[in-house]
Amino acid sequence: MSYLKAITSPQNPTVKNILSLKEKSRERRKKGLFVLEGKKELQLALKGEYQLVTVLFCPELISLDEIQDIIQNTVPAPEIISISKEIYQKIAYRDTTEGIVALGKTKEHSLDTLQFENDNPLILVAEAPEKPGNIGALLRTADAADLDGVIIANARGDLYNPNIIRSSVGCLFTTKTALGTTTEVLDYLKQHQIAINCAALSASKSYTKVDLTQPTAIVVGTEATGLSNEWLQNATQNIIIPMHGQIDSMNVSVSAAILIFEARRQRGF
Amino acid sequence: MSYLKAITSPQNPTVKNILSLKEKSRERRKKGLFVLEGKKELQLALKGEYQLVTVLFCPELISLDEIQDIIQNTVPAPEIISISKEIYQKIAYRDTTEGIVALGKTKEHSLDTLQFENDNPLILVAEAPEKPGNIGALLRTADAADLDGVIIANARGDLYNPNIIRSSVGCLFTTKTALGTTTEVLDYLKQHQIAINCAALSASKSYTKVDLTQPTAIVVGTEATGLSNEWLQNATQNIIIPMHGQIDSMNVSVSAAILIFEARRQRGF
Repeated sequence: MSYLKAITSPQNPTVKNILSLKEKSRERRKKGLFVLEGKKELQLALKGEYQLVTVLFCPELISLDEIQDIIQNTVPAPEIISISKEIYQKIAYRDTTEGIVALGKTKEHSLDTLQFENDNPLILVAEAPEKPGNIGALLRTADAADLDGVIIANARGDLYNPNIIRSSVGCLFTTKTALGTTTEVLDYLKQHQIAINCAALSASKSYTKVDLTQPTAIVVGTEATGLSNEWLQNATQNIIIPMHGQIDSMNVSVSAAILIFEARRQRGF
Repeated sequence: MSYLKAITSPQNPTVKNILSLKEKSRERRKKGLFVLEGKKELQLALKGEYQLVTVLFCPELISLDEIQDIIQNTVPAPEIISISKEIYQKIAYRDTTEGIVALGKTKEHSLDTLQFENDNPLILVAEAPEKPGNIGALLRTADAADLDGVIIANARGDLYNPNIIRSSVGCLFTTKTALGTTTEVLDYLKQHQIAINCAALSASKSYTKVDLTQPTAIVVGTEATGLSNEWLQNATQNIIIPMHGQIDSMNVSVSAAILIFEARRQRGF
């Protein structure tokens, strides 16, 4: 494999670059690059037409053949670099043993990049979700329900946080995702005549009694404070999941999934 | 507050006992004690008729009055101990600032402790869930859906893992929960004539086409391997959530919630 570039020093600038891209959203924004890890994630990034700049692999964990099998004839071809196990352990999550880390170019996620393939879209909007893990779970559900898009309103960070990528199991790459302020997202939904169904506790109709068969956005807020007034005042309809427990508060990704799959049920899957 | 016992030394045996109960399931089993933390958790443990042995509070974070307000006339009265902030930080989760830690007596969770209050129960069975956080999320959903019980088959640990308590937001204390081997749970469900609806990918009917209005158990397996053959061979019906994405694998607590709330929808909430 002498034709391959190999990195063995933890002081190597590529290694330092990866560590800083993993940790700092500012670095990702500045350089337009992000880090992904794992075989499935790499496959989904290619499927989602992300441009990969560099693929690092640890030959003790995965063969060059397998890497080339995944990458095939991707154009432009990413640079492939072999790394030692020591380097791999330095840049990878502890619980991963797949031996792949890659650098990709971030995409633009403005609202006008969101194009729907059908005229009766079903989309999810999450306002200011607190945890990367929740965003990842929402993206997994969006994938399973084949949503037409996911919009994060008033996002607290960028989409390429490694915890979002990891908890989405790579669904970030194959789900159409956009970002905007709450005001911008409301304008966008109104312009596209998409019904705004806000998950809320007050003045709400039970979610199974609401018609979700027309162009629909299901809008969820944070677990702590719910949706902002701006959403509630502009809702086509407030919807609620009837609960009868002691706590009556489900995880935001759980609530969103119940609402989304009710819409899918009404639409006949 | 001179009549109150106070702990200021990290070497105090109560402090050491709490740390070892938090970390070791073996200690919890041996002593029949567990540790809980937070105001809501304390309230729910009392609501669930758990016997509290000791309540430790940090006067810099919560007043004795507030503690006594929560505990009121609980019989037998727990010992109340004041602790320094240093001790509190040693025994509490980092992100909690409520100033309450308590020691409670564990309950028995054998299947025969599971008594239903109505003759048409809806219960959730999870086989060998991998992560405490998933069990906690399942318990939150069970609370919101007012399930008649949650059974963990072939559990990988005890129920009083601090991560389960924390992620359930205390719903562990108010949800009827039982443990048993898969064989025992199957026997129990058959004896009680509860339909066994197994979430599975093969030979499955779409979950919205299955009648979930009769005595019903919704049974979910792990994300990695699904349910064991023993479950699939004994299912009344295999059920599936139709998915159309790239990954088609949702978090187990998300899938369970979709199935449970479909049953609630069919039953008219």
